[in-house]
Amino acid sequence: MSSIFSKIISGNIPSFKVAETDKFLAFLDINPNTKGHTLCIPKVEVDNFIDLDPELFKELIDFSRNVALAIKKTIPCKKVALSIIGLEVPHTHVHLIPISHINDVTFINKVKLDKTEFVDIANKISLAYNSL
Amino acid sequence: MSSIFSKIISGNIPSFKVAETDKFLAFLDINPNTKGHTLCIPKVEVDNFIDLDPELFKELIDFSRNVALAIKKTIPCKKVALSIIGLEVPHTHVHLIPISHINDVTFINKVKLDKTEFVDIANKISLAYNSL
Repeated sequence: MSSIFSKIISGNIPSFKVAETDKFLAFLDINPNTKGHTLCIPKVEVDNFIDLDPELFKELIDFSRNVALAIKKTIPCKKVALSIIGLEVPHTHVHLIPISHINDVTFINKVKLDKTEFVDIANKISLAYNSL
Repeated sequence: MSSIFSKIISGNIPSFKVAETDKFLAFLDINPNTKGHTLCIPKVEVDNFIDLDPELFKELIDFSRNVALAIKKTIPCKKVALSIIGLEVPHTHVHLIPISHINDVTFINKVKLDKTEFVDIANKISLAYNSL
């Protein structure tokens, strides 16, 4: 069965896209810790990052680094955290979270955004990504 | 001023080493979320991972991936989380945390280990790393 992320890649589930290459996709987390919280995923569906092809994993991290640069240029924050956890969706995903306090990475505090805000944030990060 | 991690690299502060190359060091987090919680750092002192040389960053991630494989072989857990936060020590560090529950990555719950346990865990992960 396809993961929810594979359905996002195929377009069967809509998302707020931030960046895309032939191998990877970045889109906003729909339940964000902070404004700008983004997920970067490989288009190939592999549950655990340590089971990804090592070269593909390095490319995923390089892609994520570029998206992190774009987030840092767009969202006011101290740093952009990079986190791979994967206890919920069995498809490797890199969380990029603009943070200013440790509470921003505990996954307990969440922010509520409406569709207009998601679209605006995705467009701004995407613009910064395309200008790198 | 040298970061606490640079002092660990130079040996001025002791650590429970897990793996080492000419460019990187892995050692146990002294205030672990879970048993086996390890930090991977570049020997060069750069605060923010997005400011690291992109090639060196990819090498750091590859090194961390290998250490994660060794942790997974050593410590019973669902997954090994990989997380870069960096709000406390201004020297890029990759957390590798054996996890079975989301509470293991919130940095709120901590486990207490004595020196003998740290030495035993470091030795076991190191043995697995050298057998990869």
